[in-house]
Amino acid sequence: MAIKERLAELGLALPPPMRIAGQRFETVRIVGNRAIIAGHLPFGTDGELFGPLGKVGAEVSPDEAYQSARQVALVMISSLEAAGIDLDRIEWTKAFGMVNAAPGFNALPGVINGFSDLLLEVFGDKGRHSRSAIGVAELPFGVPVELEAEVALLPA
Amino acid sequence: MAIKERLAELGLALPPPMRIAGQRFETVRIVGNRAIIAGHLPFGTDGELFGPLGKVGAEVSPDEAYQSARQVALVMISSLEAAGIDLDRIEWTKAFGMVNAAPGFNALPGVINGFSDLLLEVFGDKGRHSRSAIGVAELPFGVPVELEAEVALLPA
Amino acid sequence: MAIKERLAELGLALPPPMRIAGQRFETVRIVGNRAIIAGHLPFGTDGELFGPLGKVGAEVSPDEAYQSARQVALVMISSLEAAGIDLDRIEWTKAFGMVNAAPGFNALPGVINGFSDLLLEVFGDKGRHSRSAIGVAELPFGVPVELEAEVALLPA
Repeated sequence: MAIKERLAELGLALPPPMRIAGQRFETVRIVGNRAIIAGHLPFGTDGELFGPLGKVGAEVSPDEAYQSARQVALVMISSLEAAGIDLDRIEWTKAFGMVNAAPGFNALPGVINGFSDLLLEVFGDKGRHSRSAIGVAELPFGVPVELEAEVALLPA
Repeated sequence: MAIKERLAELGLALPPPMRIAGQRFETVRIVGNRAIIAGHLPFGTDGELFGPLGKVGAEVSPDEAYQSARQVALVMISSLEAAGIDLDRIEWTKAFGMVNAAPGFNALPGVINGFSDLLLEVFGDKGRHSRSAIGVAELPFGVPVELEAEVALLPA
Repeated sequence: MAIKERLAELGLALPPPMRIAGQRFETVRIVGNRAIIAGHLPFGTDGELFGPLGKVGAEVSPDEAYQSARQVALVMISSLEAAGIDLDRIEWTKAFGMVNAAPGFNALPGVINGFSDLLLEVFGDKGRHSRSAIGVAELPFGVPVELEAEVALLPA
């Protein structure tokens, strides 16, 4: 099944591709058969920041942060498509997950699972990726979670 | 000398490959001639978390964290082998070292040297890698140190 | 215009390549057509740490940190040249920007823009890169900003 059909089947709507005002970097940088994906934040289908802001384990619950991580995956998929990449010709390879962690909150993998679960639901085996999950001191705009990632571009 | 012989010569025992309960990611992801290694934690030869937990510079001393970083390297080597990779056909290329740093503890390279020293002792020139060493806010399970890395797979 | 001429035109002097005492890692690691660049700190043309040390949003102002991020880019360029890489035959692909953030300081992209702006000024389209910008708990020596990056090596 094509990825776009799979997204529809799961009832998942893609938000707009990430585009931050005054952005000095490429959202997706293609080099050879790799697409290197910039750090993505949780944006909603309305293009606004999605979900609560703040530190996970304080202002933001782990469940809310899990949902935000799912949303980051959807924004990335949208950014890949906007970069002209055929979603049916990619394999996910790597993700780096950063949680805006309140002091003492170390259930970081559970938050980043939101991102990983969505990729596995949508892409199946092609969604399987290496990963780290860490707690950082601050994230842009106070978002609870940010991820960067990389995909391999498959020959047509 | 083969890597397994070199490990034996140095008296280094490999712990089990990393496998966290409910893990949603690949411990090692092979793509082309790269093996991308997920964030690894210090596990012991008994498969349990190795060494003290907590923040380096507070509950964990720099020397203890150095030993934990060495152990992370051993777990990674074990994970590579479990992924079917021939240890005699790899070159280390990149490592990203994350220290669970107490406020004000910034002797981060000295901790991550534990990882780098072990690779250089075992792999010699093939262990030479690019690296960053940073202090993060939280790490999974409260471990003092985590690293992710990448190796190049050499032709047979 | 050659990159060295462009640097001169802009009045930008290259600091020495990064070389930290007792360094256990490669400043630049070439693998295939990639050059993987270790975490770089802001050093000045005198080889000493550049600018104020401390946390951005507290001891270090955002503007000062922006200048430090520009300086990191210059040190990286110097390190690439010292590694024998022809500056006219590279394209920047990826950067990972880490800000030593005071609690509550999340204007992280504005700091890392110092790095990105310098690359775009010097390399033009070849300076365009994917990027993340995060706030970390501690950085080596208390520097306000550190970046690691990757470039693609173009055929002669």
